[in-house]
Amino acid sequence: MKIDAVDFFYFAMPVVTTAADGSQDALVVRVSAGGHVGWGECEAAPLPSIAAFVCPMSHGACRPVAESVLGQKLDGPQDIYRISTLVARDSMDVLQAAHTLSGIEMALWDILGKARGEPVWKLLGYRRSEAKVPYASLLFGDTPQETLDRARKARADGFGAAKFGWGPIGTATPKADADQFAAAREGLGADGWLMVDVGQIFAEDVDAAAARLPALDAARAHWFEEPFYGSSYEAYAALGARGGKVGIAGGEAAHNLAMARHLMDFGKVKFVQIDTGRIGGIGPAKAVADLAGPRGITYVNHTFTTHLALSASLQPYAGVAGDRICEYPADPTMLARVLVKEPIRRDANGEIRAPEAPGLGIEVDLQALKPYLVDTEIKVKGEVLYRTPAIA
Amino acid sequence: MKIDAVDFFYFAMPVVTTAADGSQDALVVRVSAGGHVGWGECEAAPLPSIAAFVCPMSHGACRPVAESVLGQKLDGPQDIYRISTLVARDSMDVLQAAHTLSGIEMALWDILGKARGEPVWKLLGYRRSEAKVPYASLLFGDTPQETLDRARKARADGFGAAKFGWGPIGTATPKADADQFAAAREGLGADGWLMVDVGQIFAEDVDAAAARLPALDAARAHWFEEPFYGSSYEAYAALGARGGKVGIAGGEAAHNLAMARHLMDFGKVKFVQIDTGRIGGIGPAKAVADLAGPRGITYVNHTFTTHLALSASLQPYAGVAGDRICEYPADPTMLARVLVKEPIRRDANGEIRAPEAPGLGIEVDLQALKPYLVDTEIKVKGEVLYRTPAIA
Repeated sequence: MKIDAVDFFYFAMPVVTTAADGSQDALVVRVSAGGHVGWGECEAAPLPSIAAFVCPMSHGACRPVAESVLGQKLDGPQDIYRISTLVARDSMDVLQAAHTLSGIEMALWDILGKARGEPVWKLLGYRRSEAKVPYASLLFGDTPQETLDRARKARADGFGAAKFGWGPIGTATPKADADQFAAAREGLGADGWLMVDVGQIFAEDVDAAAARLPALDAARAHWFEEPFYGSSYEAYAALGARGGKVGIAGGEAAHNLAMARHLMDFGKVKFVQIDTGRIGGIGPAKAVADLAGPRGITYVNHTFTTHLALSASLQPYAGVAGDRICEYPADPTMLARVLVKEPIRRDANGEIRAPEAPGLGIEVDLQALKPYLVDTEIKVKGEVLYRTPAIA
Repeated sequence: MKIDAVDFFYFAMPVVTTAADGSQDALVVRVSAGGHVGWGECEAAPLPSIAAFVCPMSHGACRPVAESVLGQKLDGPQDIYRISTLVARDSMDVLQAAHTLSGIEMALWDILGKARGEPVWKLLGYRRSEAKVPYASLLFGDTPQETLDRARKARADGFGAAKFGWGPIGTATPKADADQFAAAREGLGADGWLMVDVGQIFAEDVDAAAARLPALDAARAHWFEEPFYGSSYEAYAALGARGGKVGIAGGEAAHNLAMARHLMDFGKVKFVQIDTGRIGGIGPAKAVADLAGPRGITYVNHTFTTHLALSASLQPYAGVAGDRICEYPADPTMLARVLVKEPIRRDANGEIRAPEAPGLGIEVDLQALKPYLVDTEIKVKGEVLYRTPAIA
């Protein structure tokens, strides 16, 4: 097969707010090769990601991502790795390139799976798609009462695991945060899995993060996610050494395999959370899963958008039975809901699996997305480098 | 002062080639505050960098850089650090943001210096601007003979130091590379400082890079630059442990302070090379210089574009007398030449210094740049988010 076309679709809710809800817009990629169509999604700022695909060349190591993708041969996984290496080299100085590539790379796996009639996880070498316990990914309320209500709702919706993130955590006192953690625990019930995500709020301040450890342990939190900047490995390691029972988690900011490896080896995290929509796609994410196991680190997907992204994010560790837990967008925007024709549903045990259908096993509903399409045009020297593709 | 306006100018040569010559285009930033005008330059892909400034918000941690800059107070260095922290938080998920911010941040220092009548290096706490030995930054020829000729020309032009980069190195045999290194040494003369830059050609292959060490030592190379990907710290450390006399160098890919710190602490480099046009500007670069000294690591600027970028890149270590060497674009494109009214010239000793004039001490010649202006327009939902500013 030959890669014939790559189309970017930028969708957004009519109103986008400052809430930490990553499902308010979506950058979806459609790739055509050999008569097959594959889909992917960049977990990224749409406009700069599109620009990195179409931008004029600055020099030999600062070329648009398109140059390494369009027209390339796609006959097996080795071609996907080859294309990724090409992007790493020829778009070395285009910082945004990794985010742009991520959605494309997923779509290439999707195509390969469809062409071979196999799910992506089989192409990755897994023999079966193991059941995962989905945790509801939610935001802290402005008050403990709101958090309590959200936790109770998650429980009522059948989730035995939930992650609360962002909101006011870290902006006031450790006591205020403790009340929030306790509320989440109360709402979820004594036997629920509770995870806490603070979205880099402590920058590199280990003491401030450590001040939250007793309350996290009291609430029996399973992990404490992203206390620091994504690259602040020293702070992660220092916090892990402070003796809390809660495991330190991070990794969503990794935009290449090396960054994830460093968070494990230098940051000493207990959970490594990879967003296939940022790290360069499914290939590098699978490589992280391969590294995590022997290190005794739990691999977890990072997904806060659509079920297209969810499927892509499950593939890299679909066959790892020991890594049981997975992030599950429980309350996404309408845009994220209508994007796929059939979501990945929980089974009778409340568990999910990466689909058995070929490729990513997800059908994108372009028609339903029409109202969310963001009309975009980029012109350089009078030439249109990008224009939103029409939806027939 | 209040930041009133930020304007991006995208310039390019009429023809841009795949040569590793970063001066073929330029993204220049003009910032206005309190009646002063400051200038900076992103060493980055122009289109994605502009897009990261103007893109619509995706969510609270994925906002355009503009939101953290426009309208902000600018009364002292602490405001620059505050703005940079704001960008790190609110544009956390905009990968390109660091490159976009870099040029803006320089311009903020330029404004502050002009407002106070002091050079930027004084604002950074240095008492004097020390003399630096500029090395000519050149590309290897396709053949050893071409390299020999270029080295002889550099010597004839009065350079006692030269760096050769990229070209065919690493693409054929160690013997072929050895011939290139020897040619560079011969042309430069026995007493010249010779540096070698291989532009990440060995990816993470330590053995392949190590196979070049004997020839580098034979040619008495001062450093061996960027053998691996920017984040491959383990490979840098492993190569450094192979016993070559040549010092391992890297750092230009760092797009935040932590990455540069990791290359020093985990990668064990002997030279850390920072591009202020990528790392987020002058502030984080100065922080790297502060870390390098106590570690016995030599700080060097990375600059392959204009003398505006050169001035900005000298500021962070202008007062560090021990770090003698500096990169000097010796053979830039016409665009890079005309960009500044007066370049930073070598003195009678062949040395240069960061300017004594207020701010960055560089005047941008917009009129001369007119023919190089790249007409660009970005429209979203029918609204023009960016259009190339007119040059009066």
